[in-house]
Amino acid sequence: MEIREEIRIVMIGAGSVATHLSMALKDAGHIILQVYSRTNSSAMQLAELMKCDSTINLNTVRKDADLYILALSDEAVVDFTGKFSFPQSMAIHLSGGLEKELFKGKIQNYGVIYPVQTFSKSRDIDFKFIPLCIEANNPETEEFLLSLAGQLSTSIHILNSAQRQMIHLAAVYCCNFVNHFYDIASRILKENDLAFELLYPLIVETAEKVQGNLPGDVQTGPAKRNDQAIINKHLKLLSSNLRYQSLYSELSKSIRKEMEADNN
Amino acid sequence: MEIREEIRIVMIGAGSVATHLSMALKDAGHIILQVYSRTNSSAMQLAELMKCDSTINLNTVRKDADLYILALSDEAVVDFTGKFSFPQSMAIHLSGGLEKELFKGKIQNYGVIYPVQTFSKSRDIDFKFIPLCIEANNPETEEFLLSLAGQLSTSIHILNSAQRQMIHLAAVYCCNFVNHFYDIASRILKENDLAFELLYPLIVETAEKVQGNLPGDVQTGPAKRNDQAIINKHLKLLSSNLRYQSLYSELSKSIRKEMEADNN
Repeated sequence: MEIREEIRIVMIGAGSVATHLSMALKDAGHIILQVYSRTNSSAMQLAELMKCDSTINLNTVRKDADLYILALSDEAVVDFTGKFSFPQSMAIHLSGGLEKELFKGKIQNYGVIYPVQTFSKSRDIDFKFIPLCIEANNPETEEFLLSLAGQLSTSIHILNSAQRQMIHLAAVYCCNFVNHFYDIASRILKENDLAFELLYPLIVETAEKVQGNLPGDVQTGPAKRNDQAIINKHLKLLSSNLRYQSLYSELSKSIRKEMEADNN
Repeated sequence: MEIREEIRIVMIGAGSVATHLSMALKDAGHIILQVYSRTNSSAMQLAELMKCDSTINLNTVRKDADLYILALSDEAVVDFTGKFSFPQSMAIHLSGGLEKELFKGKIQNYGVIYPVQTFSKSRDIDFKFIPLCIEANNPETEEFLLSLAGQLSTSIHILNSAQRQMIHLAAVYCCNFVNHFYDIASRILKENDLAFELLYPLIVETAEKVQGNLPGDVQTGPAKRNDQAIINKHLKLLSSNLRYQSLYSELSKSIRKEMEADNN
């Protein structure tokens, strides 16, 4: 099933991922027929951008699309597939954590395109560099999704559900947990009337340093050096926030243990 | 004490920070007279780059410099200031964690230039964008250090020791702890025969997203959404590594608590 012409798509969802993906699909020459969302305002907003219809009513979701893209939270994907009667075409979800088999028995051709990226409506993002992880329930659908994904990005990977889940798990550390540490740092600075901007160059360099280096090889800091004097000073500075203090202590221990494991 | 001509500097230390700073000082027109290091090979390596002398013997450190820069680990700074007889000129250290007062009684003019950045010998870095935090023991030294730092960077900040320590503490979260999460992610992927490169775009976007946004405002992920199904699935996937599992659990709880605190 090669992609010779424009694909007719119903976009289920109107959040950040739906918005960015819709724009990338439109740029690739495809047609967003309709946007469905449970929230009227966001459905209308994306529909306006796509110059198409929108609906918040499951019964009026169009049945004549080639492809249904579920750009929803995991919970909402499960909810939608339980309620919607798919026509016999193709459906995919975009989740790192959900198996493709939730479509089984509901539609003939199905799969997953998982973009390994964090999306915000307010930030432009170039789809071309986003790793897209593909899974499908039959060779024809796989070929179709590979071809479609190849029009959007230069980084395409065929992965099964178990592998995809592992990437999603790793991504939680690299993105969500990392952002929480940025958050803690910004709050520590704010409490001391210092600007978070002071850390911008450090944050970017730390991220760029591991592009081409294994993070374990470029670890630095008091825990790496086993500098107990600094560690104890920092723990004391954190005595007014036991949660931050406990995280500092656990992370420092974990860094030491990782190093000891490497040396054994 | 304005800087009208070239400053004659002895660089104490020959590691990453010493190397990058020596190059920036040379580019600004100053002279590295001599490099001291406890390790002969690194002393000679930096001395060769600077076309100057090197020594590993405290007794042959030159006494005719305008400025002694201690680019050493905290422990080594304390050790060096305890052993070396400074001439009556000026000395600074570059540490986020050490007070300036460790120079008290040992030299007339002293202070700190703390660069808020992570350095590796193998990575080029543009000093111009590195925030430099300045502290000095008298107004003349402060003026001198401000002027010198202003030749190296466009981001200069006068901070006392307590403020500098807070930035250093925040930097441990933003750099060292963040890198440890990159490390955990890379190991999870490696164990599953997946390439860490899959996470490069996510890591960079996560870092860039907080340049101009407060991290707390752009937090995403299962803990933010309170998606217990995914959290439990991830904890199960981590059952072969209790340390990673415990960190996952603690971070998820901390993200929830930060949100609850914000909402109250």
